[in-house]
Amino acid sequence: MSDTPVRESLVGPVEIVGVGLIGTSIGLACRRAGLEVLLTDPSDDHLRTASGLGAGRVSTPADRPQLVVVAVPPDHLGAQIARALDSGAFVTDVGSVKAGPLAAVADHRTVERYVGGHPMAGSERSGPLAASASLFDGRPWAVTAHATADPRAVDLVEALAALCGAVPVRLTPDEHDKAVARTSHLPHLMAALAAGALLDAPSDHLALSGQGVRDVTRVAAGDPRLYGQIVSANATAVAALLTSVRGRLDTLIEALGAGDRSGLEAVLSQGVAGTQAIPGKHGGPALPSGRVFVAVPDHPGELARLFADAGASEVNIEDVRIDHDPGRRVGLVELVVDVDRIDHLLASLESRGWVTHR
Amino acid sequence: MSDTPVRESLVGPVEIVGVGLIGTSIGLACRRAGLEVLLTDPSDDHLRTASGLGAGRVSTPADRPQLVVVAVPPDHLGAQIARALDSGAFVTDVGSVKAGPLAAVADHRTVERYVGGHPMAGSERSGPLAASASLFDGRPWAVTAHATADPRAVDLVEALAALCGAVPVRLTPDEHDKAVARTSHLPHLMAALAAGALLDAPSDHLALSGQGVRDVTRVAAGDPRLYGQIVSANATAVAALLTSVRGRLDTLIEALGAGDRSGLEAVLSQGVAGTQAIPGKHGGPALPSGRVFVAVPDHPGELARLFADAGASEVNIEDVRIDHDPGRRVGLVELVVDVDRIDHLLASLESRGWVTHR
Repeated sequence: MSDTPVRESLVGPVEIVGVGLIGTSIGLACRRAGLEVLLTDPSDDHLRTASGLGAGRVSTPADRPQLVVVAVPPDHLGAQIARALDSGAFVTDVGSVKAGPLAAVADHRTVERYVGGHPMAGSERSGPLAASASLFDGRPWAVTAHATADPRAVDLVEALAALCGAVPVRLTPDEHDKAVARTSHLPHLMAALAAGALLDAPSDHLALSGQGVRDVTRVAAGDPRLYGQIVSANATAVAALLTSVRGRLDTLIEALGAGDRSGLEAVLSQGVAGTQAIPGKHGGPALPSGRVFVAVPDHPGELARLFADAGASEVNIEDVRIDHDPGRRVGLVELVVDVDRIDHLLASLESRGWVTHR
Repeated sequence: MSDTPVRESLVGPVEIVGVGLIGTSIGLACRRAGLEVLLTDPSDDHLRTASGLGAGRVSTPADRPQLVVVAVPPDHLGAQIARALDSGAFVTDVGSVKAGPLAAVADHRTVERYVGGHPMAGSERSGPLAASASLFDGRPWAVTAHATADPRAVDLVEALAALCGAVPVRLTPDEHDKAVARTSHLPHLMAALAAGALLDAPSDHLALSGQGVRDVTRVAAGDPRLYGQIVSANATAVAALLTSVRGRLDTLIEALGAGDRSGLEAVLSQGVAGTQAIPGKHGGPALPSGRVFVAVPDHPGELARLFADAGASEVNIEDVRIDHDPGRRVGLVELVVDVDRIDHLLASLESRGWVTHR
């Protein structure tokens, strides 16, 4: 995936510092590739779990890792990266924010051996038991080389990302932090604000909740302490975006108060354009796709039957959504397919007895 | 579905005023139930399409409908409801906001024959061609009787909702508008603000877009003119919520500026609690469910094979999500199932050769 010739091969050992969800998953992927993996964590329980899962063996003072992967919570990144650099190894980390940890080790005598990373993968679950070697399959993995980085360190981090099945994406640390402020931290906070507004609702009002509010608020279910650390570590970029949002929110409130329809529509139109700016499924521009809806009885085997029938129609299903229906045990399944294939899929499913609509 | 004895049966004819997505879908559902359906619309094209689809026949001055369903854009509801009441029929509407249209006809001599409704169903598509008799299957349908409503009108609207496969939910017009301000209009605007923040991003920043930002912003893709009308018609309730959000947004910005971690975590924790307040799939409290992830090659038949295998394991799939992976043609499919069934499903899928993780 790299566009530079590899000058340093990842041969291991790889030391993982912090065997939570991400660290243990990287260990599993490295072991799958046959590399020796050394595990370090302040929790003996986590170490036992991670090594028991096959993510590697517990590290010893005599070990000499080629690459140390620091996978600790944001508050501890700087100290642990510095400690790893002390050993003379190449070092990366998987923190959600990149400029702060770099600044913390900028004066280290071997800072050129550190190149940050950030796999765009995770889970609402945490800890080594939730880990998986396939956690990173197909995900972007930001590789954030600084100006003085050793090219061999960049090679190793890109090799690690590729070994884990991810797609390396090169950005500077500052660019990375601005990017995730916009694509991750701001959406999370907007979701939290929208979800927070549900708190004092009478419960009969929430009976009208549809798929929209569920989608908008889903990410807000994540651990507040972890997200507090992440957002705090990117405070400047996030605050700048929030301030800009605040400006548009003021515009919205004023437009509503003044009955100014065009001011309201301007904000809504910006939203439409923003959704169109997100790259499509495979990183390229969004393909034209369409939707087919199918009513599906809500018991075992019915989805299987639907997908078998859809598969028999030779139409590739790009995405699936099942509507959460209040009060009835019939699900509405939304299939996203190539727009050219909609008529064929509808005809094929209807001929097999499914109730469908566009 | 009503908890009152039916005193007025829905026997038709039913007149549909406005044959867009919702109106035509109601016509199709009524025809499916054998009722006579009369169609009215200023667009001859739409009328031809709707009647061609089998949603009913074009109305004539001699028709005497039992129930008129007004399904026009929000800006025109009041006038069209009044016009329908002039005919002496029972009248309902399907507008997204309920207090305004009622106020517009409050002084009508037969206002007791009007009872508002709001099916919680729709699509990013619009127009009669997108219509379907099953659009409302299992969806809530708010029935908003006012204090002086004729019980027979309430019966007819609840009967219409039930005939369309929906679940009637009784609320006063004011309660309804407050409810949808919170569960629909506010989330839509928050999604629009979050999506709008993507607009001036460098395109390489958007390469880091994950599932989170896609979910948060999805609804913001809806038609800005339609949502402008809807939100404007509920301006007071929406503005009150936006003002409350602005207060919490200010708290957030201040907390970030001051490095006040607890202020930040408080907003995030409110978000977690808000997501937990949304009712579960079948309208009751959320059932404990868990997630299983499966790596699936992205070509025809593979999802079919997965669901066949999942079906063979006799585990009911509550929800499905397919991750949009940049750069690789392997999908990550997330299956939501009863938490008690996770181990069984994992073992069953792995024995069939699937790469899975929790």
